[in-house]
Amino acid sequence: MSTFVVVGGDAAGMSAASKAKRDDPDLDVVVFERGQWVSYGACGLPYYVKGEIQSLEDLVSVTPEEFREERDIDLRIGHDVTEIDPDGRTVTAQGDDGEVEQEYDHLLVATGAEAVTPPIEGLDREGVYTLGSMSDGKDLREYVARARDEGNLQQPDRGLACQFLETCTGPVGIVGGGYIGIEMAEALAANGFEVHLFQRGDRVLTQFSRATSEAVLDHLETQDVAVYLDSEVRELAGDGSVEAVVTPDDRVPVEMVLVGTGVRPRTALAEAAGIELGETGAIATDAYRETTVQDVYAAGDCAEAEHVVTGAPAYVPLALTANRHGRAVGQTVTGSPTEGGGVAGTAAVKAFDVEAARTGVLPEEARRAGFDPLTDTIEAKSRAGYYPEGGTVQVTLTVDRPTGRVLGGSLVSEYGEGAVHRSHALVGAVTEGVTVDELANYDLAYAPPFNTTWDPVLTAAKVVDGQR
Amino acid sequence: MSTFVVVGGDAAGMSAASKAKRDDPDLDVVVFERGQWVSYGACGLPYYVKGEIQSLEDLVSVTPEEFREERDIDLRIGHDVTEIDPDGRTVTAQGDDGEVEQEYDHLLVATGAEAVTPPIEGLDREGVYTLGSMSDGKDLREYVARARDEGNLQQPDRGLACQFLETCTGPVGIVGGGYIGIEMAEALAANGFEVHLFQRGDRVLTQFSRATSEAVLDHLETQDVAVYLDSEVRELAGDGSVEAVVTPDDRVPVEMVLVGTGVRPRTALAEAAGIELGETGAIATDAYRETTVQDVYAAGDCAEAEHVVTGAPAYVPLALTANRHGRAVGQTVTGSPTEGGGVAGTAAVKAFDVEAARTGVLPEEARRAGFDPLTDTIEAKSRAGYYPEGGTVQVTLTVDRPTGRVLGGSLVSEYGEGAVHRSHALVGAVTEGVTVDELANYDLAYAPPFNTTWDPVLTAAKVVDGQR
Repeated sequence: MSTFVVVGGDAAGMSAASKAKRDDPDLDVVVFERGQWVSYGACGLPYYVKGEIQSLEDLVSVTPEEFREERDIDLRIGHDVTEIDPDGRTVTAQGDDGEVEQEYDHLLVATGAEAVTPPIEGLDREGVYTLGSMSDGKDLREYVARARDEGNLQQPDRGLACQFLETCTGPVGIVGGGYIGIEMAEALAANGFEVHLFQRGDRVLTQFSRATSEAVLDHLETQDVAVYLDSEVRELAGDGSVEAVVTPDDRVPVEMVLVGTGVRPRTALAEAAGIELGETGAIATDAYRETTVQDVYAAGDCAEAEHVVTGAPAYVPLALTANRHGRAVGQTVTGSPTEGGGVAGTAAVKAFDVEAARTGVLPEEARRAGFDPLTDTIEAKSRAGYYPEGGTVQVTLTVDRPTGRVLGGSLVSEYGEGAVHRSHALVGAVTEGVTVDELANYDLAYAPPFNTTWDPVLTAAKVVDGQR
Repeated sequence: MSTFVVVGGDAAGMSAASKAKRDDPDLDVVVFERGQWVSYGACGLPYYVKGEIQSLEDLVSVTPEEFREERDIDLRIGHDVTEIDPDGRTVTAQGDDGEVEQEYDHLLVATGAEAVTPPIEGLDREGVYTLGSMSDGKDLREYVARARDEGNLQQPDRGLACQFLETCTGPVGIVGGGYIGIEMAEALAANGFEVHLFQRGDRVLTQFSRATSEAVLDHLETQDVAVYLDSEVRELAGDGSVEAVVTPDDRVPVEMVLVGTGVRPRTALAEAAGIELGETGAIATDAYRETTVQDVYAAGDCAEAEHVVTGAPAYVPLALTANRHGRAVGQTVTGSPTEGGGVAGTAAVKAFDVEAARTGVLPEEARRAGFDPLTDTIEAKSRAGYYPEGGTVQVTLTVDRPTGRVLGGSLVSEYGEGAVHRSHALVGAVTEGVTVDELANYDLAYAPPFNTTWDPVLTAAKVVDGQR
């Protein structure tokens, strides 16, 4: 009987474990998870803090009991794997009951990512939060509840405002204008906090097109989020707990700070075992997610993957890739070698009442990859002009000038007007190497309640094709 | 100086005229339109009848004056082209001021489609309507207004119900369960009519998957639309105006009937000129929309086009293809030969509070084209399970069993839950010949407010791939 061992019980790890056990019920599947939660939707944490999701348990798609009892997976939570020994084909884990050694035939490293610690003084002050784990989410929600209660008690005249979700408490600071920063701005503003968001670069959502970033920035400002661009935070100042965010230009009083400045792959365990990292700093793998050590795989937020446009390794730690690659490893270790596919760098975000998505490579990344990018941005109606509902979709399209190949795109619209689902058209185009004139001829669905006769994606393709 | 003549002033004709003039301002562009309206959004007519669009003019994207004055196009409305003489390179048109003969260097036939006349007795009775033209729309809207007024007057106890848009007048019959039938059921029900819809076949929306048809049917029934399947209408009976819809099984009293049983290409003019029709009955063209007669093109609802999946000619008379092929002809006749691309048979429809889309070929059509189709339907949440909003997306996916190639798909969801925009992913897949395992590995956008980690399209691909 063969044994498949998984280190890390979130998206990649549990997808692999579940798929392997389903495809080969005779396989022994052992999962070590150092925390108490497995298979949870970390992407839902901002909505939990916001108050739209009532319980942390709601974020769990399958419980530890279900994994053990229904799926017959030997899941050991509270077990921290301290060593991988590829020669002996064992891992060592530290649990509450001491150290255990576990043999493996196949091993998956799915250790995930950890928050980047920016060079900021005062990160350890009380009132400074991050949002990387379920317990972070719990802490933040408790903070929000407490602050709202106190706001109501101390300022009875503002208590009513809190009920109607106007600014009633805070101010609070957010360091970082990426997904987490933006989603948490929404979550905190919805709870009546006055939000100050600090971004090191000259725009928010730097992975999106500049036009998309500007559209989101404009919207954040209409939502009374104070955004500080080109503002490198130096210190979270205070006497005990945090009292102010300090940048070279500003000192903004705050009662709480959320730090969301990105993640990096958690690779120490793999490195110590002699598993090689790639140029991105994440664990290098082949198309089957096998690492440089035989029978040891890596998937999810700790690993890199081939980019479908550039062909080069990329580090894009997002949930779908983790699920997909984990599942593929589960198939591979049970005798059906399966490539999980590359990454297109696709991402989506809701920011208050707008939605945005991006895929592929945009101008700077394209230039670095050796393309000659041509980019333009169009704005178009999201539905037929005469239809009673509707808004605007802005589409940025980047193509390779000499070949016309679609390299990437970025879309933004009002929430509900379809920027995100429309990006599905561009994901296919960048994955298949479609040219912009071919894309302009796509027979996309049309009816007045859903788009103009030429969907905005097609209009963008026509316009950019006309400029070549 | 060269002359480009266009017969028919709607989507294909005006797209061609506008593009040609823009690309070559020295070109003489003459358009003959037999009616009074040009470049109008016929797809919007149901929403005009419904009352969501206030004026027929709102459906016009560019007015005759704008075409003449801003675009310098010699547009002649009220001119019925009676003959094309390919040898003499002339067309003859009958206008209010008599007959005119016009020479051409290039000619586009864009004569559109006409309603199929089903073998039903009593089609000429008063109270029987179709919805093929702007004046049809006007007549229907007037009928609706009149009937509502009368309903209020004659049945004062039901007047209040009318205000709240409950059933207050009618009953009315709809013959045909395609796009027009369904959209008009919504339009009439929204105005308080009791709606009876008669469909010859065993399901509505026969171009969609059976699962989609059933989902839409279920929804129509929740909206109190009485749907009669397998009901071939024999007679619209009455003493003067229509009083009942008669099928072999039923005699349903009605005060009005809308007949929407599909369209056929309007080809008489082309046929008389010796232009060949294809096997579909529409005008045959090459990839550049040139007909069998040199320098004579055909585009839009009168012409067939190559299907991207089967490679065979197909007749799919829809707005985007007309626009796209018209535009391509405009480029071709000004010296830039341009293929307008094939058709994927993509279509979308809103039916009350659900939305549906389809693309490619589904089982029956696939079998006829020589494929060995494998089809399955999945239901999945439209957003993360824990997200406070959301519904269900049902995806039918058809693939070729031996090769895995994605042949077609059909999607349905609550309105706003993204069935239509998600179909964009499948259009690319069927157009590019993507296999179902490749599709399952697509890096589609994900965030909790927009989908589950695996978008329903990906879930469908995984499930169908697993059955091969």
